[in-house]
Amino acid sequence: MSLLAVGTVAFDALETPFGKAEKVIGGSATYITLAASYFAPKVNLVAVVGYDFTPEHVNTFRQHGIDVEGLQVRQDKKSFFWAGRYHNDMNTRDTLVTELNVLEDFDPVIPESYQDCQVLMLGNLTPSIQATVIHRLKNRPQLVVMDTMNLWISIAFEELKQVLGLVDVLSINDEEARQLTREYSLRLAARRLLEMGPKYVIIKKGEHGALLFSQDKVFFAPALPLEEVFDPTGAGDSFAGGFTGYLARTGDFSFENMKRAVIYGSAMASFCVEKFGPERIMGLSYSEIEERAAQFHELVRIV
Amino acid sequence: MSLLAVGTVAFDALETPFGKAEKVIGGSATYITLAASYFAPKVNLVAVVGYDFTPEHVNTFRQHGIDVEGLQVRQDKKSFFWAGRYHNDMNTRDTLVTELNVLEDFDPVIPESYQDCQVLMLGNLTPSIQATVIHRLKNRPQLVVMDTMNLWISIAFEELKQVLGLVDVLSINDEEARQLTREYSLRLAARRLLEMGPKYVIIKKGEHGALLFSQDKVFFAPALPLEEVFDPTGAGDSFAGGFTGYLARTGDFSFENMKRAVIYGSAMASFCVEKFGPERIMGLSYSEIEERAAQFHELVRIV
Repeated sequence: MSLLAVGTVAFDALETPFGKAEKVIGGSATYITLAASYFAPKVNLVAVVGYDFTPEHVNTFRQHGIDVEGLQVRQDKKSFFWAGRYHNDMNTRDTLVTELNVLEDFDPVIPESYQDCQVLMLGNLTPSIQATVIHRLKNRPQLVVMDTMNLWISIAFEELKQVLGLVDVLSINDEEARQLTREYSLRLAARRLLEMGPKYVIIKKGEHGALLFSQDKVFFAPALPLEEVFDPTGAGDSFAGGFTGYLARTGDFSFENMKRAVIYGSAMASFCVEKFGPERIMGLSYSEIEERAAQFHELVRIV
Repeated sequence: MSLLAVGTVAFDALETPFGKAEKVIGGSATYITLAASYFAPKVNLVAVVGYDFTPEHVNTFRQHGIDVEGLQVRQDKKSFFWAGRYHNDMNTRDTLVTELNVLEDFDPVIPESYQDCQVLMLGNLTPSIQATVIHRLKNRPQLVVMDTMNLWISIAFEELKQVLGLVDVLSINDEEARQLTREYSLRLAARRLLEMGPKYVIIKKGEHGALLFSQDKVFFAPALPLEEVFDPTGAGDSFAGGFTGYLARTGDFSFENMKRAVIYGSAMASFCVEKFGPERIMGLSYSEIEERAAQFHELVRIV
């Protein structure tokens, strides 16, 4: 099955207690497509970049077999730029700079060759752009997954609720789930979110793992206790890429198979944080990924 | 096998966002022995209380088949008293009152009939009292497990390190593990703790589950995503009681069996937080406990 990923492709400047990176490729769609490329037979990208995004940068995607026909390159503006600094605990960060640039008037165009995609992953973007993408697909994909962020919960709550009514799976972190539902208990928060439309809700808890909820079932995937977290940027998007990539590979959207997909998503996130930016999720081998996934199974296994 | 639990028996005044309890039985040894009583063939208690601790209070233990020969009742002092208030997130609390009373000069006396215990659970107490208990047992128990708290890390670090050298298993929460080792990564913290003596380290992460480490293995037990946490008091001690009780029941101290013990400990902790004080862990049926443990297995199960 083919996967269509829509989101941001950006440049990030990152600062963590372990060092600095001045300008690395980032953005939700970057992490999603790179992570998904190890699983999905075909990965299609819809995003926008500016004149500072060179053909060499585009090659990063091509080298992973990602279709870039839907990557718009604007010659009049710069790419989206984000700079952030992580605190010592690596769980909180300050945004230092946000330059929207090409994102200010992003109009997602879906190439004809992408129209047959079976899995759609809506990375973090304004809810109205996410809705536009769904409406521009002639046939609804078999599975629509979305991510979001605290900013849209604060400033575009109504639009966000409308998109929630259109998707099958919501992937969200614990703080966002609490903010969106005003429930502290994640179990109650998940119930509220399921009432808003999605059939499945994934609540990501960072270093504490992830929960997958359906109306009547719950599954918990641990996070690997890592010795070092180098840079958490993109972990959630790598999770989404591994999750949707695995589902596109298997074509099985049952709850049981989603559990496996959550493990692969968690494995991709665990790789992501080991180096700056998306470096670690470029050039992985599939056997490395299988080995990592096996560690997740081993971690909770009782014989 | 018989289990000997040493710790505090106290009165607690509790305040949570859900209500208040003026004076309930509390203390580490209370939660440990009550939780262990569902598993261990014999549970022996060593602790001290004051003249305000009535025969009716003592009956709480007797009704659970707990041997109270080692419970000293002082007629000249009041029982240890602690009052605390939980914040809205239920993860942080303020201590409002600490009255040591009988604890000021507690001298743990081990009755002759307790000398043959195979499993020793040292609940939270000053490290020097914990060491005294170990030295007063003529034969070393087959398994010695200890808990501790942030206060002793701050004011009795050297004594604490000495006790660590005498035990098999350390049960500690994540913040204490970080404080004790100055490592943020729990994996590195566990390694440092294992270097200090224990063969096994359990790091409790509250609503995020628990990790069991040996020199070369790691196991993760999730926490059940509960709809409501009513009162977290005693959760860690209930965990310790379920853990050591199960080990005393089975007599198998292998890493594989400790995994199962961690699940039973987690199950007891999940019951504990559902009501004020130890109310919920009194009067449970073993089938309720088995059902709860099965939920933990189900939560991470992939078929």
